[in-house]
Parts: sequence; structure tokens; C-alpha cells
Amino acid sequence: MSIRLNIVNAIYNGMPKEAGISKIDFEGPEIAVYVRNPAVVDGETVKKIAKEIKKRVVVKADPKSRKDKEETKEIIKNIVPQEAQIIDIKFDDELGEVLIKAKKPGLVIGKGGSIQQKIFAETYWRPIIVREPPLKSRTYDGVLTHIYNETEYRAKALRVFGERIHRDILFKDRFVRITGLGGFNEVGRSAVLVETPESKILLDVGLNPSVSYGEKLFPRIDIDQVKLEDIDAVVITHAHLDHCGMVPLLFKYGYEGPVYMTPPTRDIMALAQLDALDVAEKEGRPIPYTAKEVRRELLHTITLDYGEVTDIAPDVKLTFYNAGHILGSAMAHLHIGEGLHNVVYTGDFKYARTKLLDKANDEFIRVDTMIMETTYGAHDQENREESEAKLIDIINKTISKGGKVLIPVLSVGRGQEIMLVINDAMKNKKIPEVPVYITGMVDEITAIHTAYPEWLSRELREAILYRDENPFMSEFFKRIEGYKEDIAQGEPSIIIATSGMLNGGPAVEFFKNMAHDTRNSIVFVSYQAEGTLGRKVRDGAKDIQILDRDGRVENIKVNMEIGVVEGFSGHSDRRQLLAFLRNLNVKPKNLVLNHGEPSAISSFKRLVESGKIKGIDNVYAPKILESIRTI
Amino acid sequence: MSIRLNIVNAIYNGMPKEAGISKIDFEGPEIAVYVRNPAVVDGETVKKIAKEIKKRVVVKADPKSRKDKEETKEIIKNIVPQEAQIIDIKFDDELGEVLIKAKKPGLVIGKGGSIQQKIFAETYWRPIIVREPPLKSRTYDGVLTHIYNETEYRAKALRVFGERIHRDILFKDRFVRITGLGGFNEVGRSAVLVETPESKILLDVGLNPSVSYGEKLFPRIDIDQVKLEDIDAVVITHAHLDHCGMVPLLFKYGYEGPVYMTPPTRDIMALAQLDALDVAEKEGRPIPYTAKEVRRELLHTITLDYGEVTDIAPDVKLTFYNAGHILGSAMAHLHIGEGLHNVVYTGDFKYARTKLLDKANDEFIRVDTMIMETTYGAHDQENREESEAKLIDIINKTISKGGKVLIPVLSVGRGQEIMLVINDAMKNKKIPEVPVYITGMVDEITAIHTAYPEWLSRELREAILYRDENPFMSEFFKRIEGYKEDIAQGEPSIIIATSGMLNGGPAVEFFKNMAHDTRNSIVFVSYQAEGTLGRKVRDGAKDIQILDRDGRVENIKVNMEIGVVEGFSGHSDRRQLLAFLRNLNVKPKNLVLNHGEPSAISSFKRLVESGKIKGIDNVYAPKILESIRTI
Repeated sequence: MSIRLNIVNAIYNGMPKEAGISKIDFEGPEIAVYVRNPAVVDGETVKKIAKEIKKRVVVKADPKSRKDKEETKEIIKNIVPQEAQIIDIKFDDELGEVLIKAKKPGLVIGKGGSIQQKIFAETYWRPIIVREPPLKSRTYDGVLTHIYNETEYRAKALRVFGERIHRDILFKDRFVRITGLGGFNEVGRSAVLVETPESKILLDVGLNPSVSYGEKLFPRIDIDQVKLEDIDAVVITHAHLDHCGMVPLLFKYGYEGPVYMTPPTRDIMALAQLDALDVAEKEGRPIPYTAKEVRRELLHTITLDYGEVTDIAPDVKLTFYNAGHILGSAMAHLHIGEGLHNVVYTGDFKYARTKLLDKANDEFIRVDTMIMETTYGAHDQENREESEAKLIDIINKTISKGGKVLIPVLSVGRGQEIMLVINDAMKNKKIPEVPVYITGMVDEITAIHTAYPEWLSRELREAILYRDENPFMSEFFKRIEGYKEDIAQGEPSIIIATSGMLNGGPAVEFFKNMAHDTRNSIVFVSYQAEGTLGRKVRDGAKDIQILDRDGRVENIKVNMEIGVVEGFSGHSDRRQLLAFLRNLNVKPKNLVLNHGEPSAISSFKRLVESGKIKGIDNVYAPKILESIRTI
Repeated sequence: MSIRLNIVNAIYNGMPKEAGISKIDFEGPEIAVYVRNPAVVDGETVKKIAKEIKKRVVVKADPKSRKDKEETKEIIKNIVPQEAQIIDIKFDDELGEVLIKAKKPGLVIGKGGSIQQKIFAETYWRPIIVREPPLKSRTYDGVLTHIYNETEYRAKALRVFGERIHRDILFKDRFVRITGLGGFNEVGRSAVLVETPESKILLDVGLNPSVSYGEKLFPRIDIDQVKLEDIDAVVITHAHLDHCGMVPLLFKYGYEGPVYMTPPTRDIMALAQLDALDVAEKEGRPIPYTAKEVRRELLHTITLDYGEVTDIAPDVKLTFYNAGHILGSAMAHLHIGEGLHNVVYTGDFKYARTKLLDKANDEFIRVDTMIMETTYGAHDQENREESEAKLIDIINKTISKGGKVLIPVLSVGRGQEIMLVINDAMKNKKIPEVPVYITGMVDEITAIHTAYPEWLSRELREAILYRDENPFMSEFFKRIEGYKEDIAQGEPSIIIATSGMLNGGPAVEFFKNMAHDTRNSIVFVSYQAEGTLGRKVRDGAKDIQILDRDGRVENIKVNMEIGVVEGFSGHSDRRQLLAFLRNLNVKPKNLVLNHGEPSAISSFKRLVESGKIKGIDNVYAPKILESIRTI
């Protein structure tokens, strides 16, 4: 009997007759059971069916049973306590869902989901509850609006995905083949193809930020193995462009399948892609897709929380785990063929606590093959406490001289971490109270962070959710738009500005106007790539020529103090990579190293092979276009 | 400017005006220049052009200039000395060629090609000269007749190949990717995919003789990387079915490109494939193609001699070298991207002289990557002289008892080698003169050997061509059809019969009727696979049940003497593999081991890595579906 028939039978047999099933839909990875009388279906019944068929099952109401929308709004407002502060209510007629946006979503959910359940029981609309962030984010609002404007397209797409995910298994032969498409023996354009006889999964589809054009900009998604119509799922581990920057291109070339990621990754990714289009246009550089493909990608996105086990192909289940790298970053666990093989792809990960995020996960039910990033495979980073002390010291010295501190930051992750460090230091009087200006994309990204407190470190989460202390809302922070002359020339202050390598954004303007003054400082808190202005300055250049927007050469004298603080990295250093492997509850038979320069990878490979880690049989360091079979 | 335009220009500029070029055709790897007046074109002019454009150039006459066919036949018969014994003359109007079949083709060619040139100069037909073998071969005749019946189809196909081979190079990116499709960490279903950004080459497309059906019967030509319409060339190294048995399947599924091999491989392959169809039909086993696809394959076959450098893709040149394994067996050298990379695929090879063939080649202009068979990677074979002595000893003992000797042989290679050994021994009185019966396919294969004396060992070649002594024609050999009761029960004799593992053919009938008699012997001279009747007998089983054709069980008592002689293998043993690598004039940077059981391969890999061979950087032992990049 076919898999789908099996599922349908189990549902008909398991549900009470009185429920009146009107339709069973495969909506992406979920099985939606539409009934005329949801009141008679209790949670236990659904759980039992889900357990039997090992699928995610949701009960929804037949359209004819659902309450009128205006009436529903009224009921919701009556049930939900006022303090929840509902901001918006939107309906999805296709999926029978009602989106409730509230300042305190926990109060809409209720204890143990009680209020949420009550809403469904009284309106027959399935509530989807999201947070209205304290800092307004255009991106966050825009993504939700876009998706709820296109419910018809989206429902149709989900049904196509669902039929495909739950298709029958055809082949008896069993293998798992892993092919490096990008980001192998290099950093950038990350992409991995995982193939079984049944299915093909793409893990990350990034661009190469160190080149502007040409074939090295893309991962090798042009080869015959990557037939877009045969790809079952694209899985994105985090929102940096070197991991997700080429997803829209798939849609341009005809990909019609789902893209899986966490909710924060979706929003930051959309922002990063649209910003990249913007910057490329300004610089007259071509990017091979447009905003149209970004919008399509969003409609094909299925978001998953950490720990949520989800069918993404007839023989593959996906589960995300915290990677500790940036907001929403995930390790992807693929359970293949009912126990045949388990693959973990770490993506970029930080195996250490930061102020912003918890330490990456190190517990998996099973792992046979681990694909692990090795960016710092050959280096140990400066220790975190030293780094904080160093940053505080530079700030104190600069301000005592009457100077200003410029901190160029990457918009995602590093910027927020530095904000938290400075806020803490100022609160604890380790540095004097001066204005902290935030400018550039870091501001919008911070707003997205405030929409997802559940995804932050335990301490932050508790402070925000239970004590109502949100450090991102700290009174020390002053948000500004772009570059401000009066701040660059004004009183002592701290300026946190993008971009992190001085290759664009307001940070460059601030630098140009602050560099001459010996009282000022610039502090580099992240990696400065070869060829960037940041690298030149960090390396001590004193006379710098910059082309301004009109193509005129400006000569910049660099008299300001240069600080370099390296301990805030979002990547695990060598010690952390080793500790991660050592602490894993189950050891992978195969370790595949990627995302690193060849020297870092070969050095770390030798380290593991020399017996530093017990229980790993094979260490692979494939080149791009090499394929390995892990079973 | 395009590659094709370049070629055309060079030809127009290089040829004398008076030649009157009427057409330039790309006929497979050859550039054919059709002229109205070939008399004015001398050999030097053509050589100069060929050297300039690095292509094979042939001058042909415009159809209107060619002499009338009957007249041409008369001219040929007048020019060629009578002793050449011309048997047949056939015309190919499409390609302007005349096929001359003669018992002494050397006399048709003439000293330094003088007569051949004269034929062209006087008739304007390009002579193709082949041998009429002393032993009539149905296969050999059939193949030639088939090809000359379909000259129109073939000329059209060659032109399509030619256009494709000489297409322009598109990509700047350069890589060479090697993927194991079959025969990696196993023996059987050999197939290798070599990919560059421009082109895809399949090296061997075999079947797995140890299974009768199911997915392990085929190499993995079903994966997306093997898009048949994108394959530029199929290259077959020799005619054993585990290397060529699935080529017809490619044509069934739409392959329309060329298949390259040596002329003897073409004929033996056709015979082996048709015989496999025959046997499968008798046994009621399905084979996924029919004789129709074999016939198509022959029309797509382009034969190459050893050492002939040939363009097979815009960035790949192929050259065959002697492999010493069976008649026509070749090592394939791929020169990729004008010096970028050189790959040698050894196929099966014997790095030692046998009576039948010369030792495999060990000199290459360049090799960067060598894909080498490792069948005997873990074993040294019994020495050749001992083996011969052992065989002679068994024969002597048996005949002196009044018994008969049954030698089951593989039809290709081993059978002929044993014939040569016995002929020599009998001639030199080491064994008494008794009839040597030859039965089964070995007879037809021997006939094909007599058509290609140039491809045999130097000694045989000299004996046959210069001294007119053909051991295959020896008076000792008596050819019979199938099984003969009177021989099985008759006077002392030697019976050489297929198949080699007693899994079919007249050998089984002889065995059944000879086994009970203690005076008789059976001698195994080749590998007996697990599960075959041969293996059971070799291992000493005394009571054997065999199903006869009507499904009745026959009980066979084995009282005959069992002899095992292992030194006649067509594969290099461990010592020979090592000697081959050691003697190579250039050492490959990468050594890829295939065609061996996992234990043989891993053992040989350790041997090479332990430093036995200097100059090899990487040793790979890929699994099927693993891909490696050698540049």
C-alpha cells in the first residue's frame, strides 16, 4: 500500500466518526486533517495518530465550520488578556489559520497553550502567534505581510511539497553520497549536496563574498547532479550570505521546492539578500537575481524551531539544533532511511557561550557522518574575558582623552554582541556614560533580534521575558541614520557602525572624518579580509587614498589609535572544535571537514587523525566536486 | 574565431588551389578534405596541415572525380600482385572508400604503402585494406558486412560526431573529476566517468557476470551525472563482458555518440554480446537489450590502433596502448586540455609476456593520474614455467593411463594461450601426439585471432607473417561442434572446451560423461568463481547433482583426477603490478585503484603508501559513486 494511503487510513481509523473529516491535505511536512466538528477531537487522539504514522498531524476546521472573521476577532480580544497587547490579526483562508501579533505573545498562548487552544475551540481558526517586537523592524513586518498577502500561492505550494515529501520509496539500493559544491577547502559559497537513491538535499547555497563576479562567486549548482527539479529540499543553516546568498538564484532557474530554516534566519536572510541587491546596484555590480526571486523564496520557506523533527523527503527527516553562531543559526541533522544513516552538518557554529547566544548543541541521538566547519582549524582565539577587558580599556583611554571610539561591525551577530558588552560595562560603571550611537544595518538587525528573545542566550531570554529588561532597548543606545557630521566632530562617544571591514556603510564616513584626530580610536572586533580598507588600517597604513562617490581621490591621514580585539568570533576556535568533538555524546564514524582554508583543514585533519579524538574512523577533506559515500 | 573555422581556413590556405576543394567534412575524429583533383595533393602537404591544426586529416576525392566501380575493381586487380589473394572488394560511396579484403593484406599495402597509394591515385577511391583470416570467422565477416551495408547511416553518424568533437571550448574553469560507476572495490560491471567542464567520457560499460539480475548487474549509469545526451565518448578497453557488456544498453536508452575501441575488441565484443543474449534466452534470464542495439553499437564504433592519437572531445585526446590482457586489449590514455592533465586507465592488463601477447606497455609521454586494476593486489601467482610444466605433467600421466584430459577454458584469451602451450609441447615431443579437440566459442574466437596477427605477441606475429607458421592452424587441433559422445568415451585425447567455470557450454557435457572414469582428468586453468560448478569440482566435491535441460536431477560421481594450474592468468599479479608502477617512465601523482575485492585493494594501497613506490603522492581507493578531483 502506498505511504499516503497508509496515512489516510490511519487518520480515518484513529479519528472519532463525529469529527466529520472533510479533507486530508499534505501541507508541506504537516498532515492537515480538516474536520467539520473539531470540538470532538481531543489532543490525545491527534498525538496517538501522529505517533502511529510518525508524522506531524494538525487538526483544522472545515471552512464552512469556521466562525465569521469579525466575530473571530471579537472572540480573540475577549479571550486574550489586555496586557498581551494584540497589535494585528490576519487570516489565512487557505490554511484556516489566524495570525495574532502581540507585544506579549506568551499571554496569547496561555499556560500550557490553554488560551491558544481556547481560541481554536471557540473560533475554529488555528491561531499562529507571533511577537510584535519592541523595536520596529521593517523586515520582520514586511516578511509577514508578504506571506499573508499570498496565502493562496503559499497553500498551493505547500500541498505540492506535501505530496512530494510523502511519495513512495522506490529503490532497494541504499547509499548516502555527499558532494561538496562550495565552501570545501575554502571559505565562502557554502553548499553541500546530500544524495540518496530517493532524494537530493541541498545544505546551504551561499555566495562568495570575496569575489564580485565570475564562476567562483557561485557554488557548483550548475552540474548535472544538481537538477533543480530533482532537489527535494534546500536547508539553510544561517542567514550570512556565504550560506544563503544564492538561494534566490535557484528560483530564477526554476526551483519550485521548499527551503527550510529557522524563523529568525528567514527574516535576516531576506534583509541581507535585499541589502546585497541594493549595494550591488549602487556599485554597478551585477547580481544574478532580483527582489522578485527573494519574494518567491520567502513564499517557499518553511520555518522550523530547534528540535522539531520534520519529514523533508520520503527517506529524510530534518532537525535543527542551536549552533550559537548568529541569531537563528542552526546545525542540521538529517536522519536518513529509518535508521540507515545520520548526517549532521554543523554550519558555522560557536562552541562557547557568548552574551548573545547559548553554546552550540553537542547532543545528538545518532550521528554517523558529521560535516563540520573548520574556519579556525589551525588557530586558537584570544580568550573572551581578555577581549572584553581590552575593549573596555581602549574605550576608557579614548574617552579620558576627550576622543571618540569607532567600532566597525558586521551587521549580524557581532554588532549585537558588542552592544551587549558595552551596555554591561556602562551599567556596571566600568566605562563612563557617554552616548553610544548605532548606525547602519546593525540597527534593523537588532530590531529583528528583539522579535525573537526565545532564540537568545538563556540569560538574555530570562532578562527580556521574565524581568522585562531588554538590553537592546537600553537608554545608552542612540539610533541614528547613516553618517552624522556633528557626532564625528562632537563630544566623546562610542559609534557602532556597519560595515565591519570598512568596505561600505556609514562606518567608512565616520572613519574618514575621525581618522586625523589622535584623540580618536578605531577598534576592529572581527576578521578583516585581504584587500579591504579595514585590513589596510588594521595593518597600520598611515596615508590612505579613498575614492569618494564622485570618483575623486581623498587623502586620509590616519592618526587615530588602532585597536584589534579578536575574541568575539562567532566561530569555534581550534580548542573549541576539539572540545566539541570530544564532548559529543556519540562519535561520528566519518568526519568531513569543510569551510576553511586548505591549511586550516589539513592541519585539523592531522590533529584528529593523530588520535586526539577517539572513535572517529575516517576524516575527509574533500575538494569541491568531490563526492564521498558515507554508506 | 571558432575551432572549426580555424581548421577550414588552415586547409584552404595549405592546399594547392588546383586541388579544387569541394567539401570539408568532420568525419568522427578525422577531417576529410574532398577534392576534385587529388593528383595534385602530395603527402607532405597533408602532413603539414595536420601538424599545424593538430588533427587527423585525410584527402578524399569528390564523388564526381572517382572512377567507375567496375573499372576500379579491374585497376585494383591489375595493380595488386596475385599472391595477395583478394577475396572481396566493397565500396562506401558516402566516405569514398573501397574495402579490399585479401589473404595477404601486406601485399595490397605494398612497401611503405606504395601500392595502397597507387590505388588511390589511379581510382580516386581511398583503399581500406583488411585481412581475410585463414580460419573463417562468421563474426568477423558479419561485422564488416553489417557496416558496409549501412554506409549511409554510418557516414551521417560520423559527421555528427565530428561536428561535436570539434565544437568550441566554452569554460574557463578547469577540472578533472573521476567517478566510479562500477568495478570499484569490486570486480565486475566496470565503468568510470571522467568529467571536465567541457566533456564527459565513459571508460568501459560492463556488466556484472556474478549476478543474473537486479541493480548490481549494471554500473551506475542511471545517475544524473551520466546524462546520455551529454556523453561525448564511450571508450572500451577490451571485449570481456565485465568491461563492455552494457554498451548496447546505452543505445537502447538513447545514446547516439561514438564508441572507441581497437578493431579486435570490436569483433570479439560483438560475438560476446550476441552470445550472452543467446545464453540468456536459453536460460530464460532477461538481458535488457537485444541484437538490434548490438548492431547499432557497431555502426557507432570507431576503431583505433595502438598509438593512434585521436580527438574524442574538444578538450580530450585518446590514445590506446597494448595491455597484454586479451587480443586487442588496451590501456586508454586521455590527454586533457592541451597539457592540463593526463589520465591513464589501464583496464585489465598483464605486465608479463605470454605466448599469445606482448607485455603491457609501460611508457607514456605524460601521466598525472593512473586508474589501475588491482585484481591481484594481494596475491602473487604461481610462476608461468611451473604452470606449463604442471599442465604437461597432468596430460602425460592421464594419457599414459589411457585417459582423456578436459580443459575448460574461457573463450577469450585463456583458450588460445592453452592451445599455444599444447601445440608447443606436442611439437617439442613433451607430450604424445593425441588429438586436441577444440569446441565451443573458443573456436570462433580463435578464428578472429587469425584475422589480427599484427596484434599478437612479437614471436607469433613473426611466425605467422614472415614464416607462414600459424600455430592456430596446427594439424594437432581438431575442431568439433558442441559435445561428441564418441570423443568423451573414445581414445586418449585433450579436449579444450568452453565455458571456463563449467557454467554452460560443451565443457559441462564432457564433464558429465567423463567424470566417473578414474583414468580421466580435468584441469582448471582459470579463476573459478564462488557458486559455479567449476568451483565445486575444483574444491573436491565427489557427488554432484546437476539439473539437466528437462529439469531432471542427474547425479554425477566425480572419480576423475582434478588438476589446478594458476599461472596462465591474464591479470598482473602483485609483483607485476608493483613492477609496472616501478618501471613507468613517469610516475603518476595520483593512483586510483579499482577492479579488485576490497581486501586486495586496501592491501595494495598500503603497499604503495608504505613507500614501495616513489613519486606517487596520493593513492585513492574510491567506492562506487565516489568522485575524486585530480585537478
